[in-house]
Amino acid sequence: MPILCKPAVSVPEHVVTLAQTLELCNTIHADHPQLELALRLLRNTGVQTRHFVRPLEETLSHPGLTERNRLYQEHSKLRVPPVIHEALSNASLGAEDIDAIVYVSCTGFLMPSMTAHLVNEMGFRSDTRQIPIAQLGCAAGGAAINQAFTFCTAFPDANVLIVACEFCSLCYQPTDKGVGNLLSNGLFGDAVAAAVVRARGGAGPRLERTASYLIPHTEDWICYEVKETGFHFRLDKRVPKTMEPLAPSMRALAQAHGMDASKLGFYIIHAGGPRILDDLALFLNVDRDRFRYSRATLTSYGNIASAVVFDALRRAFEDGEVREGATGMIAGFGPGITAEICVGHWAEDAFPAAA
Amino acid sequence: MPILCKPAVSVPEHVVTLAQTLELCNTIHADHPQLELALRLLRNTGVQTRHFVRPLEETLSHPGLTERNRLYQEHSKLRVPPVIHEALSNASLGAEDIDAIVYVSCTGFLMPSMTAHLVNEMGFRSDTRQIPIAQLGCAAGGAAINQAFTFCTAFPDANVLIVACEFCSLCYQPTDKGVGNLLSNGLFGDAVAAAVVRARGGAGPRLERTASYLIPHTEDWICYEVKETGFHFRLDKRVPKTMEPLAPSMRALAQAHGMDASKLGFYIIHAGGPRILDDLALFLNVDRDRFRYSRATLTSYGNIASAVVFDALRRAFEDGEVREGATGMIAGFGPGITAEICVGHWAEDAFPAAA
Repeated sequence: MPILCKPAVSVPEHVVTLAQTLELCNTIHADHPQLELALRLLRNTGVQTRHFVRPLEETLSHPGLTERNRLYQEHSKLRVPPVIHEALSNASLGAEDIDAIVYVSCTGFLMPSMTAHLVNEMGFRSDTRQIPIAQLGCAAGGAAINQAFTFCTAFPDANVLIVACEFCSLCYQPTDKGVGNLLSNGLFGDAVAAAVVRARGGAGPRLERTASYLIPHTEDWICYEVKETGFHFRLDKRVPKTMEPLAPSMRALAQAHGMDASKLGFYIIHAGGPRILDDLALFLNVDRDRFRYSRATLTSYGNIASAVVFDALRRAFEDGEVREGATGMIAGFGPGITAEICVGHWAEDAFPAAA
Repeated sequence: MPILCKPAVSVPEHVVTLAQTLELCNTIHADHPQLELALRLLRNTGVQTRHFVRPLEETLSHPGLTERNRLYQEHSKLRVPPVIHEALSNASLGAEDIDAIVYVSCTGFLMPSMTAHLVNEMGFRSDTRQIPIAQLGCAAGGAAINQAFTFCTAFPDANVLIVACEFCSLCYQPTDKGVGNLLSNGLFGDAVAAAVVRARGGAGPRLERTASYLIPHTEDWICYEVKETGFHFRLDKRVPKTMEPLAPSMRALAQAHGMDASKLGFYIIHAGGPRILDDLALFLNVDRDRFRYSRATLTSYGNIASAVVFDALRRAFEDGEVREGATGMIAGFGPGITAEICVGHWAEDAFPAAA
């Protein structure tokens, strides 16, 4: 069974605080009829700091989609390789040991995918499988892990590199003034994460069983409108309440694997927002503190989309409290509304020689 | 080993002939310094007819990216379900038997992916895996088949639905006047294809071994520029010569499976253009006629991107000359430059009861 090794995570150098976010909202939307609601929602996110690829004043201006996507490409090429190097090092593997790259990102669009660039520039083999996924949004972190599980199950000697590259600040749309947009403007942050799923050996969550679940008839609750100005994020106010319909699918997966979703040893949960974490704790009947890694990600980085689960997992590694054999769950949530879920046991195997 | 059942393919009702394409090029680009070259390239494509989702005069005007992507969504929702119904029928399966949907399309962008809509509207289970891939372009047809192979290898009871939805006419860019663009304007067509990969039973190519290959340092040979006006296709003049570096990867895959790539019973090849097919015949040392299904697709529909391999395979089914046990290869080519290749034997198994 494959093991998800310690992720590497990098956030950009331009820090934005909650105080700055609130002040900006106050200034820019002084006449907004729902300003007080927006400010309250922003305070309730619990997001204290976020990190953007550009200084705040540049982030706030829209230079056009051509320039936006150019910036996305420039920053991807700049910021992804160092994170991959660290993830490979964490897994004691080299680029030549990787059989597939699952690349997830929903905040820009490149064709060919960045995977082609990475193969050319970082020493991956020419026969590396490229699995770029853009349209699963925040759920793509969980989906990437599940893709890696599928690949390693099909090819038991394979090692898979996962990369999640999210520059949410490059999707800021100054003309969008719905309350959902004002909230999003204070919720999302930028980050790059990478992690290796090793065919054998390594330390971390052993990926043992996966599932997906789509909540029926919620496809327009989280979506992009694609316009001349790029991706416009639409967030329905019902989204925070989706943990009630999703929790049974998480319970069912745990149960199918002989586990009780209320009593797992570790939880790596997509931190879409504070309500997501609070409600999920309620509906899974677990103590809120059990989601502390996800909450720490949300507090320090904001919702970094598909990269959240990797940063939360990094914190679990660094915390060091998860012991060998502990049961656990990883779950990504995003548009669809889709959940991508995986369960397994924490492993502390010695590294064997690379396959 | 999973079997790729007979694809269903639908092309839109608005037909554009080679004569119309040449006349348009002559009219619109009368002053173009390389008009004669463009006209010669267009004649050489061998494309006689193409099918667009809108009448020609509407196709030629650019209504803006917002409207373009709205049309992409509208036509996807309209045109994909009937093709899926037919593909399911071809495989003697119902929507509830499908475990994963691989959805490939590079000519528009939806988040959530169309997979969410299909699950909601067509009776697929809520736990269906969604695998949307946009950034592999024309290679995504082969990549989708390889994804299905991976999924069915990991989960031997699984049935996978593949959908390729390409409305290339919605990416027409009137302001792009490079010779590569003028050629593309006469090469690409619209189509929707779907096919089911059955875990067990069925008739068609048994998917037995897959590979990917990226030609080093060709990432800017086929690419999109993403602009306010949408996806702008860039085609390097070196692309038609890529079969020489790709053919060895195809030979190697066949050889690894105990086959001789020069002597297979059937070939389902992405018809990127006439030179692709001619050169590949040369470098694989096979008679040009062996690629007749792909050539028929190119002649009747143009390059329909990721849908080509499914239409060529449909023609092989309808031709009826491929016999049980015949060896064969399916290959998609696209940006990267990437090849996605699969080999196997043609099966004529009776349908067992659905798993």
